Amino acid sequence: MTTVEHPARAQEPPNPAATSISPLGHALREATAGRWGHIRERARQTLPVELMQRDPALTMPQARDWTRATLATLTERGFTTSGFPQAYGGHDDVGRSAVDFEMCAHGDLSVTIKSGVQFGLFGGAVASLGTQWHHETYLRDIVTLQLPGCYAMTEIGHGSDVSSLETTLTYDPAGDEIVVHSPTASSMKAYIGGAAVDARMGVVYGQLVVGEQHHGVHATLVPLRDETGRTLPGVMLGDHGAKGGLAGVDNGTLMFDHVRVPRRMLLDRYGGVTSDGEYVSEIENPNRRFFTMLGTLVRGRVCIAGAGGVAGRRALSIATRYALQRRQFSAPGHEGQVLLIDYLAHQRKLLPRIAEAYALMFAQNEIVDRLQELHAADNADQEAQRELETRAAGLKAVSTRFGNDTAQLCREACGGAGYLAENGLTLVRRDADVFATFEGDNTVLLQLVAKGLLSHYKEMFGDLDMFGMLQFAARSFGGAVIERTAARPVIDRLVEATRLGSGGDPLHDRGWHVEMFEDRERHVLETLATRLRRSAKSSDDSFEAFNYAQDHVLLAARVHMDRVVLEAFVQGIEDCVDPVAQDRLTRLADLYALSSIEADSAWFQQHNRLSATRSKAVTAAINELCRSLRPDALALVEGMGVPQEWLNSSMLVEPHWTP
Amino acid sequence: MTTVEHPARAQEPPNPAATSISPLGHALREATAGRWGHIRERARQTLPVELMQRDPALTMPQARDWTRATLATLTERGFTTSGFPQAYGGHDDVGRSAVDFEMCAHGDLSVTIKSGVQFGLFGGAVASLGTQWHHETYLRDIVTLQLPGCYAMTEIGHGSDVSSLETTLTYDPAGDEIVVHSPTASSMKAYIGGAAVDARMGVVYGQLVVGEQHHGVHATLVPLRDETGRTLPGVMLGDHGAKGGLAGVDNGTLMFDHVRVPRRMLLDRYGGVTSDGEYVSEIENPNRRFFTMLGTLVRGRVCIAGAGGVAGRRALSIATRYALQRRQFSAPGHEGQVLLIDYLAHQRKLLPRIAEAYALMFAQNEIVDRLQELHAADNADQEAQRELETRAAGLKAVSTRFGNDTAQLCREACGGAGYLAENGLTLVRRDADVFATFEGDNTVLLQLVAKGLLSHYKEMFGDLDMFGMLQFAARSFGGAVIERTAARPVIDRLVEATRLGSGGDPLHDRGWHVEMFEDRERHVLETLATRLRRSAKSSDDSFEAFNYAQDHVLLAARVHMDRVVLEAFVQGIEDCVDPVAQDRLTRLADLYALSSIEADSAWFQQHNRLSATRSKAVTAAINELCRSLRPDALALVEGMGVPQEWLNSSMLVEPHWTP
Repeated sequence: MTTVEHPARAQEPPNPAATSISPLGHALREATAGRWGHIRERARQTLPVELMQRDPALTMPQARDWTRATLATLTERGFTTSGFPQAYGGHDDVGRSAVDFEMCAHGDLSVTIKSGVQFGLFGGAVASLGTQWHHETYLRDIVTLQLPGCYAMTEIGHGSDVSSLETTLTYDPAGDEIVVHSPTASSMKAYIGGAAVDARMGVVYGQLVVGEQHHGVHATLVPLRDETGRTLPGVMLGDHGAKGGLAGVDNGTLMFDHVRVPRRMLLDRYGGVTSDGEYVSEIENPNRRFFTMLGTLVRGRVCIAGAGGVAGRRALSIATRYALQRRQFSAPGHEGQVLLIDYLAHQRKLLPRIAEAYALMFAQNEIVDRLQELHAADNADQEAQRELETRAAGLKAVSTRFGNDTAQLCREACGGAGYLAENGLTLVRRDADVFATFEGDNTVLLQLVAKGLLSHYKEMFGDLDMFGMLQFAARSFGGAVIERTAARPVIDRLVEATRLGSGGDPLHDRGWHVEMFEDRERHVLETLATRLRRSAKSSDDSFEAFNYAQDHVLLAARVHMDRVVLEAFVQGIEDCVDPVAQDRLTRLADLYALSSIEADSAWFQQHNRLSATRSKAVTAAINELCRSLRPDALALVEGMGVPQEWLNSSMLVEPHWTP
Repeated sequence: MTTVEHPARAQEPPNPAATSISPLGHALREATAGRWGHIRERARQTLPVELMQRDPALTMPQARDWTRATLATLTERGFTTSGFPQAYGGHDDVGRSAVDFEMCAHGDLSVTIKSGVQFGLFGGAVASLGTQWHHETYLRDIVTLQLPGCYAMTEIGHGSDVSSLETTLTYDPAGDEIVVHSPTASSMKAYIGGAAVDARMGVVYGQLVVGEQHHGVHATLVPLRDETGRTLPGVMLGDHGAKGGLAGVDNGTLMFDHVRVPRRMLLDRYGGVTSDGEYVSEIENPNRRFFTMLGTLVRGRVCIAGAGGVAGRRALSIATRYALQRRQFSAPGHEGQVLLIDYLAHQRKLLPRIAEAYALMFAQNEIVDRLQELHAADNADQEAQRELETRAAGLKAVSTRFGNDTAQLCREACGGAGYLAENGLTLVRRDADVFATFEGDNTVLLQLVAKGLLSHYKEMFGDLDMFGMLQFAARSFGGAVIERTAARPVIDRLVEATRLGSGGDPLHDRGWHVEMFEDRERHVLETLATRLRRSAKSSDDSFEAFNYAQDHVLLAARVHMDRVVLEAFVQGIEDCVDPVAQDRLTRLADLYALSSIEADSAWFQQHNRLSATRSKAVTAAINELCRSLRPDALALVEGMGVPQEWLNSSMLVEPHWTP
């Protein structure tokens, strides 16, 4: 492996935060900054730790108050609303709004989620599903937090399966009103952020009924509380109280007893009722209409993917810094006790996670770019839109899994110190926990990814209806198509070099990694399609046909996402202008790729893609990469972009890099 | 696979709790009850949920008050002190005390840990390390909670490495006193349960200095607070405040500024100072002495292993019952929506964990029996004692990993509902979290196991000094010896049957499973010994020699424990008298064994122990076992012995089995 030394810098970097980190850390931070790097830097420069970190000893009511107040401050300072149209106080910059969210997530996650509820879900639904009247009437107040709202989609009996919502929105021509009603116990809206205390209005999803006709799920605005906070007639609100985390978010329940709202409260961009009491929609196919409305969830998933990544990076920043100061056990012939980071087992805990953190940063930047591109395009290609939605679902699942598992691993890697709230790991672990199941349950989202792959994104109506997968499998003929991501040209070049035998040691040859990833994905997907086709033919029971292959379905989604993330990493390395940073990123990408191959070593061996000898060599290469990256551990952590000042970890005693 | 139907029972089981569960659940509960089944049943019959479950909304100070009061009640009712000698209010029944602890752990873990601190660690140290004067002076008050204490071993700079403690216990002949002193910042006692508020006395560990001579780590009693709770002169106490969990345990710090206690306060069973100021000990070898004193930790590790298992069973009880009531997504041709438990992916989450839960119950019963046997033996075999300590370390690591991971998995398997505190999963997840790193960090404990295996338990002085492993490796000649556990006769029989070719389908042949487990362990251990020997010869740096093989060391420990646990399961099945229960346990053992083989499939293939074809067959067999066990899901959960009444989970709506 070539080691490139960092050239001396001609001058100090311009801003104070950057001066406190090493040149390599700074270069890595630049390499991972993406298109909205200035937005990241602005947050780092101007947000003090007091706005980012909540006192973990606050009680739930205190945490709710602190969260509300902190969100107001962040909003005043312009960190939460850049996705709204300029006319209503935003910057019409959807990409930036995702990055703002990510920077928020470096701080308290209750504030972040509360922001997501108000501006992403509630405000986002008004903006995307509403029309001019809704925008003009409500957006200004939403953007300034004058009108706190909530997003009432999930019901206690229906989470992932949105199409089965039971709440009814019935048009009553007599009063030209929509009657909002909860007909059953299982139709109670549940887990709704803001419902318990703050929300004065809700975007309420339910089945729209006009005359005798059911038109499927639509959403309407419903006032919930008056300006004094009193609950309005016919509305029943509940408080979920203590949760696994997010103590500052007032999650609660809603039920409606024939609550009447004017017809125009219906968010009718994709489907509404005329003054003649007739249902109208630009989208004829009801499945396509439903799916288009749910498509607005894509931003939320992109944001949560970002926040999951941050949770992991934050935890790694703390645990790695601790491992660089904490010693345990004397070793014969070594002065003092051994630093935790010098143990192979500790390196193997932290460094592959750091590699994955980098991989996911590049993948996140890529999806935010794509989100912005499609938002900016006047007439977005439907297939591209579906592909983005699928990617967002997959990245959300992968990043939140990474965030949760990494936070847990880091807590344990800090021993008893990791269990003390004052050291900054327990809150992030607890708050990020719910990411695995909200904004789409990860298991269900991975199924959605598999469905997208089987259908080549061409038709995916019905959202999460998994059994429809069988139809796609039945229709998809020929071999699976591995469509390369934005990184296509560079990937083509690398794979070509490997095929021509110029790639060198395969373990460190990116072309070989890419081929292993592509081959795994193609084979898993082809055999899945064959299996589903076969069982669809031989069985009358499409549930059982799907169910027998469910583990295969999930595997297909996971290996696809591994490939997508690796390609983003490759492109990120290609774009890196600093040679030392590029060298370290190259090694991190090796570590990421080999860790994925090692994790699936059983599969690769089963399918004759990896010999016993090489599979052992993969493990040895991972150990060696950990050792080679260990001297740069602090810089790698600095490069992940979480300022030391925000870590708020009492146990960290060596605050800054010194030249 | 043969299905045995349950014979009609001639009469109802005698006690009310048992009537509320199915006959199969009851039979499984009996099969896993172990020697102290009546103690388990007594707890189930007499402890109301109010004593078992804390309101998750309590603040930290409220939680501490509730914990203190609840512990007092449980103590009055005789659930916490059976391990003490009868003369001081106990039953001199160490095994029962471990089972009492396990039953306590079905309830609030703050109460459980607080009990462990007072009676296991503080009282246990006085009983084991003290002599008659200490017993007569303090044990009665400890047993009645009149004298609340703490166990001050860990220092902020020294957790796993007890031999490096910095606190000094210096004998001063002038006043015939021991001077207790904290010489450095890193010598601060940290994470000490009871230190923040309640403890009036501590067992304080430090380096004993007599004259110019250092005698290594010893422990002394030190009064900390007076009867009004005021801190005594020279003692500095701190409060760790909010933690990742265990809100009811008042963990804190201690420092000493030349605090003087009478000489007789030294716990001098294994080493003390005479009135002439001379150090005396029955154990000449200082390493052996240190290790003998630390040997008292074995009970704590056995107890935490038990509690880790309970945390997993409790979470599985909730998540499985929820999966049996919660439906999501309609399936074509199926009436209503599909129950979560009917999804293969959900079965694969829960059922292998249930299998592991059973495996660990049998392993836990076995180790508690062994603990009691060695305690009862007047002159315990030193090798047997070392073996028990090693087994306890390993089982603690394995069971707490199981408990934490399972609680997390169950939380996620319940979606948003799992995140609400009222549903009973968040507290157990949070409270059990610290089990992974306290009472011995799991990574360090697994190293201790490997060391025991390399040394054949013959000499293991120095406790956790990992580098000493190299010496053992160097000395251990010939092949690794796989010493079978108590299950030896039945295992021999099974393996023999397989060798004779009468085992039938290998995937369901226990002899094949055992051979796979033994072969894996033997090979991993032999290659580890060879590798360590080789690197010890070729390198002057014993740390690096150890470090290069650290992942191999951890693997050796894990696969050893997998084998030990499987053997306990085999013995448990052998002892089961109910044919239906025996059939289900047999399938669960298949599932446990095949899951372990699947998890290490890469290793087995690498080492030519598993063909590609059979490795795929293992996965298919696991899926099939999940399907075959699904109809008994409720009974399997009932059999794990957590009464429905104690689950305290609002979302569970179908409370009882009905005949």
